[in-house]
Amino acid sequence: MIKKLKNTDIIVPLETPKSMYDEYIKNYLEITKNTGKLMLFAGDQKIEHLNDDFYGENISIDDSDPEHLFKIAANSKIGVFAAQLGLISRYGRDYSGVNYLVKLNSKTNIVETEQKDPLSCALLSVADVLEFKQNSGLNILGIGYTIYLGSEFESIMLSEASKIIYEAHKNGFVVVLWVYPRGKAVKNEKDPHLIAGAAGVASCLGADFVKVNYPKGENPEILFKEVVMASGRTKVVCAGGGSKSPEEFLKELYNQIHVSGAFGNATGRNIHQKPLNEAVNMCNAIYAITIEDKSVEEALKIYNGNMK
Amino acid sequence: MIKKLKNTDIIVPLETPKSMYDEYIKNYLEITKNTGKLMLFAGDQKIEHLNDDFYGENISIDDSDPEHLFKIAANSKIGVFAAQLGLISRYGRDYSGVNYLVKLNSKTNIVETEQKDPLSCALLSVADVLEFKQNSGLNILGIGYTIYLGSEFESIMLSEASKIIYEAHKNGFVVVLWVYPRGKAVKNEKDPHLIAGAAGVASCLGADFVKVNYPKGENPEILFKEVVMASGRTKVVCAGGGSKSPEEFLKELYNQIHVSGAFGNATGRNIHQKPLNEAVNMCNAIYAITIEDKSVEEALKIYNGNMK
Amino acid sequence: MIKKLKNTDIIVPLETPKSMYDEYIKNYLEITKNTGKLMLFAGDQKIEHLNDDFYGENISIDDSDPEHLFKIAANSKIGVFAAQLGLISRYGRDYSGVNYLVKLNSKTNIVETEQKDPLSCALLSVADVLEFKQNSGLNILGIGYTIYLGSEFESIMLSEASKIIYEAHKNGFVVVLWVYPRGKAVKNEKDPHLIAGAAGVASCLGADFVKVNYPKGENPEILFKEVVMASGRTKVVCAGGGSKSPEEFLKELYNQIHVSGAFGNATGRNIHQKPLNEAVNMCNAIYAITIEDKSVEEALKIYNGNMK
Amino acid sequence: MIKKLKNTDIIVPLETPKSMYDEYIKNYLEITKNTGKLMLFAGDQKIEHLNDDFYGENISIDDSDPEHLFKIAANSKIGVFAAQLGLISRYGRDYSGVNYLVKLNSKTNIVETEQKDPLSCALLSVADVLEFKQNSGLNILGIGYTIYLGSEFESIMLSEASKIIYEAHKNGFVVVLWVYPRGKAVKNEKDPHLIAGAAGVASCLGADFVKVNYPKGENPEILFKEVVMASGRTKVVCAGGGSKSPEEFLKELYNQIHVSGAFGNATGRNIHQKPLNEAVNMCNAIYAITIEDKSVEEALKIYNGNMK
Amino acid sequence: MIKKLKNTDIIVPLETPKSMYDEYIKNYLEITKNTGKLMLFAGDQKIEHLNDDFYGENISIDDSDPEHLFKIAANSKIGVFAAQLGLISRYGRDYSGVNYLVKLNSKTNIVETEQKDPLSCALLSVADVLEFKQNSGLNILGIGYTIYLGSEFESIMLSEASKIIYEAHKNGFVVVLWVYPRGKAVKNEKDPHLIAGAAGVASCLGADFVKVNYPKGENPEILFKEVVMASGRTKVVCAGGGSKSPEEFLKELYNQIHVSGAFGNATGRNIHQKPLNEAVNMCNAIYAITIEDKSVEEALKIYNGNMK
Repeated sequence: MIKKLKNTDIIVPLETPKSMYDEYIKNYLEITKNTGKLMLFAGDQKIEHLNDDFYGENISIDDSDPEHLFKIAANSKIGVFAAQLGLISRYGRDYSGVNYLVKLNSKTNIVETEQKDPLSCALLSVADVLEFKQNSGLNILGIGYTIYLGSEFESIMLSEASKIIYEAHKNGFVVVLWVYPRGKAVKNEKDPHLIAGAAGVASCLGADFVKVNYPKGENPEILFKEVVMASGRTKVVCAGGGSKSPEEFLKELYNQIHVSGAFGNATGRNIHQKPLNEAVNMCNAIYAITIEDKSVEEALKIYNGNMK
Repeated sequence: MIKKLKNTDIIVPLETPKSMYDEYIKNYLEITKNTGKLMLFAGDQKIEHLNDDFYGENISIDDSDPEHLFKIAANSKIGVFAAQLGLISRYGRDYSGVNYLVKLNSKTNIVETEQKDPLSCALLSVADVLEFKQNSGLNILGIGYTIYLGSEFESIMLSEASKIIYEAHKNGFVVVLWVYPRGKAVKNEKDPHLIAGAAGVASCLGADFVKVNYPKGENPEILFKEVVMASGRTKVVCAGGGSKSPEEFLKELYNQIHVSGAFGNATGRNIHQKPLNEAVNMCNAIYAITIEDKSVEEALKIYNGNMK
Repeated sequence: MIKKLKNTDIIVPLETPKSMYDEYIKNYLEITKNTGKLMLFAGDQKIEHLNDDFYGENISIDDSDPEHLFKIAANSKIGVFAAQLGLISRYGRDYSGVNYLVKLNSKTNIVETEQKDPLSCALLSVADVLEFKQNSGLNILGIGYTIYLGSEFESIMLSEASKIIYEAHKNGFVVVLWVYPRGKAVKNEKDPHLIAGAAGVASCLGADFVKVNYPKGENPEILFKEVVMASGRTKVVCAGGGSKSPEEFLKELYNQIHVSGAFGNATGRNIHQKPLNEAVNMCNAIYAITIEDKSVEEALKIYNGNMK
Repeated sequence: MIKKLKNTDIIVPLETPKSMYDEYIKNYLEITKNTGKLMLFAGDQKIEHLNDDFYGENISIDDSDPEHLFKIAANSKIGVFAAQLGLISRYGRDYSGVNYLVKLNSKTNIVETEQKDPLSCALLSVADVLEFKQNSGLNILGIGYTIYLGSEFESIMLSEASKIIYEAHKNGFVVVLWVYPRGKAVKNEKDPHLIAGAAGVASCLGADFVKVNYPKGENPEILFKEVVMASGRTKVVCAGGGSKSPEEFLKELYNQIHVSGAFGNATGRNIHQKPLNEAVNMCNAIYAITIEDKSVEEALKIYNGNMK
Repeated sequence: MIKKLKNTDIIVPLETPKSMYDEYIKNYLEITKNTGKLMLFAGDQKIEHLNDDFYGENISIDDSDPEHLFKIAANSKIGVFAAQLGLISRYGRDYSGVNYLVKLNSKTNIVETEQKDPLSCALLSVADVLEFKQNSGLNILGIGYTIYLGSEFESIMLSEASKIIYEAHKNGFVVVLWVYPRGKAVKNEKDPHLIAGAAGVASCLGADFVKVNYPKGENPEILFKEVVMASGRTKVVCAGGGSKSPEEFLKELYNQIHVSGAFGNATGRNIHQKPLNEAVNMCNAIYAITIEDKSVEEALKIYNGNMK
């Protein structure tokens, strides 16, 4: 059984003023369901991948409507649902029970790296998110930001991320960094040593969680150990990546957590491209492994609807 | 008959503070004439297209004087007239009955995409517009902004748009985004899947309406459905585009609304390049289809001046 | 005879707060000598053209000393003298009777367009000019700014100009925009259709006056009508351009006003490259046509010193 | 024996207000252990070199965990431990006895100079560090910043460094600049004359210490004298550089101090790539030479664990 | 004999508020030793030229230590010593009798113009200098800034310079601009017509003094007259340039003042590359010509130590 964390287990970042400790701890416990592990449902792809992830072959027509994301988030077990503030602003009123993480920057996939190295800038400030939380009454637990390491514009994103983490922690938010090596200088985005470096950068910036790509290679769960070690107290969660069969996905997730030592996952397409019921089951299956310490077989049963 | 919206039908964006709910609802109902649909008369082309749209072959000499735009806006049925603040500042005193939307950014068409990807930056801030509304006493209901997705400068416009939407909503303004994929990386600006992506971006930024180009292809009204779905609660309105015959224009508009599910239109050249009377009739015809649920035939009669 | 404007003839820009109406009207009437027409003596070329306009063949040695500009401004009839604040700061104490317009941006002519598109940024803010007016006690009536339309840096200048106009009007200043199409994308800077576009841009930004180049071509005074129409309530004034014979210059000016409908002129080199007395006479001759409704013949007499 | 400095020996920078003199003097004496010499343990490489310095051949597995750095810092004699604020934020609670220096900027090594000249921007402000010091209660004595002289982006870093030094001194922090000539224009980064120039730049910016590379060439300890002279009252400390044998390292350090006149060292890899015990011994050995005026032989004994 | 200026001879810049007139006048009289002429000892080359000017063949070893500059400034007759604030901050305590001018921007000479046009940005603000003056108690009379006219980055430096001059004058500081045409577009930096343009730019920005290069060509003292005329009330001082024999240097200086009409000089290398005593004598010799109206022969005697 998974150990439930107590308030005193949480290492509050030192930039958080004492008056905000309770807020940070509350957010941290809530976002990790008292386990220290993170099941993040990623819903920021409408900017990142435009409509490619939401409409087309092998994608449920349910996914063509943005509300699909909120329906999934509201009806399944997740730690937190990540989306841009504008989208949350439009649907949050009808989905006020969901835990939200505001993804603060995003870019489209139209310009390719060969043309120009990637740059993604903050759409709003942490102060805006805090005000939004107050005006909306929504349960906003955290903030997300993507850095493209090795881009020619890396310095802009490193600085922006650093300031966002600092401000977020001062206000009690949990921060998840997406850190992807990308740019003309990056030869292999899935190189485990490079991903370990990316995770280490997140640790130096003081993120709570870092979302990285899972390495490619033989025995990736072994290779991934370097990444988990490198990021220290910043906890590593794996990007769900492109579509896989649920069995394959859940086995990989299990290994990430139980072999590599990862602290969870951040999954989008493998959830929302499915019809609502199946998507909900998939969330619950992922949650079972990540948060409830279930086996792959138990999780697959959940996915197949045999248990809830 | 078109259903009249009540205050309680309006989904106020969650960044709007409660003290500004009434203002937002009032603006929203007024700009949509209580229908949730938008008939926007676009008058920002004097920067966007310089004098090409206002003087030359097949353009009424009436259009050579900027006041033509205000005369049309004042004498016809429209939801709102969109123009740059500076122009409104000069004529608004004599046309104080018009509903205005301030277009916050603009660029000229001199530099072509092959030379440099498009960039259009805010000319003023939302705070300026709010102050202008107070100083002028004009009925300013909304704010507009153009994003060129896929431009190498996309990140500047995404960030600026996001902040403008946030501030506008905080002050009760309705926001219309113009979102056009454009840049060296964009192969086909009229690809429906790409336009759907653009609409989805607007939804993630929390715009109230998104103005997009109508796709090219067979049965565009069917292709356009993907766009309407992708933008969710951000409502899609169609750009009027280049000159067409009124019949062709009104048929297309009818299909956009009744087949594709669009929520209106944003039309410039197809209105103002006509002499004043004809332009007024054209506005009224567009309004009839968009807001009054009339048929193409009824609208054509209005255009031809047989009814008002 | 030229009609004298009354306070109530002035259309105050709507961003001007009511408390500043009197100030704006006072400045407008003073800068146009109660006629609505502008005779601007342009003295910003020491940055724009370095010493090329002030020293060399066919240039009076008087012009080699910057004080020459102030002597002309103080001893002749003009609407306003335009120069950079720093220059005004040095001589204004001894020429406190002159009407000043602060030219807020400037660039040199060293880097040519083939090397890099033109960019001219504000040297100071409107708030600085306001403070300067108060500290100096000088009669500063207006603010000037140059936009290079079609430059790859157009967006910087459009935004800066827009903000400057807005702030200037809030403080009662009259604004003159210099708008020149220039850049690698501009094939013909003297194309009347393009100049009309430039004037239209100024009208969208809300300038009071726009200084443009006079078109090249047959019957330029006819071609120029498109420009005057396009700029609407923003009044067109013509750049004086390179050296011409006084007779040629004054005839052209007369046609600009009486045929094309221009509202004045902004002249530099054709004035200050002459010795002081001749320069003063030239100012008075230009003033006679622009403000006093005199004929070319009368103006030439003034230039030739036969009357004052 | 090394002379112990008194408060009155410290030349407080003149931008420091009198009310902060005691704070600056306290920090200066503490960071130099009352000797005026600096033993800085550099732990900022997780961004600068990603995981290359922490995992791989000839690197102790201890080094794969960021906590290794803190264990070393807490268990050995050092003047100060330099790391990014985010990392300190995560571990400082458990290592509150350590003296910290916040490294304010960092970049990765992914983009090479051939592709783009180096740029490293501040991740946070001095005001943030001051607030962090107060919120965390940690013993933060100083601030660090890297300038890449000769980069095409040099002006950004020179300005940022200058402002950071000014603000840091105003708040009593000691400042260490890392100054490395690097960029397409730099032919030989180890040229002593160029390094002397770099040190001189640090002196003009008012840094307390400047970390530079040790020159390459015959008798580098002689060549290095030019560097020490050029930096005047800004004290030169040597970068530890790549891995060397402890004996070689300590001999070089001894010469830097006793022949060249350097004021200490800033060492990272030669410490933390070793297992904890050996790393602690290495720190103590370096400290012995730098701060305790010991010979190379005595220091080697310390490294070999024969004395503490 | 040189006429001593009275307070009423000083033309205070009009942006200076009346409450700061006395401060400006005091600074102006002090920096010009009541003569209106400027002898500026330039000590900013440690950034501009790195160690090239301070160590090497034909350079006294005295010059390798930055303190040499302060010793010269303290022991000779000068109007003002110009250096970066950071350097002044380190030595000012021991040289509190010196008149200082803070050079606000600087760049290194590593990147050559062929690679990238020059850009030099402000290291600190005028407000910082004012605060520094108060905290340090030093006698800071003025502020300096370099503009590279004709650089592709000219607009950045023109704007920054303009704002700095405005703020400096508001606080009573005297401003010296260094204005050098430089960039790929500049074919001949020593062209007198171009230098005259540079001086004219300084006059439009309102500088008190402008430091320019002395033209190359036959009878430069005649060519230079164009420069002196062009800059009007902004007074021209000559850059000392590279090393020359004292006799050659002093003759040139004499001609600059007595033939061309220059108002002084700004000299660095020709002073500080000499041993202390000789450097002091050189200062005094320059001072004799510039401020004391001495002949070349008298000045040479001073240089040779025959009189003080």
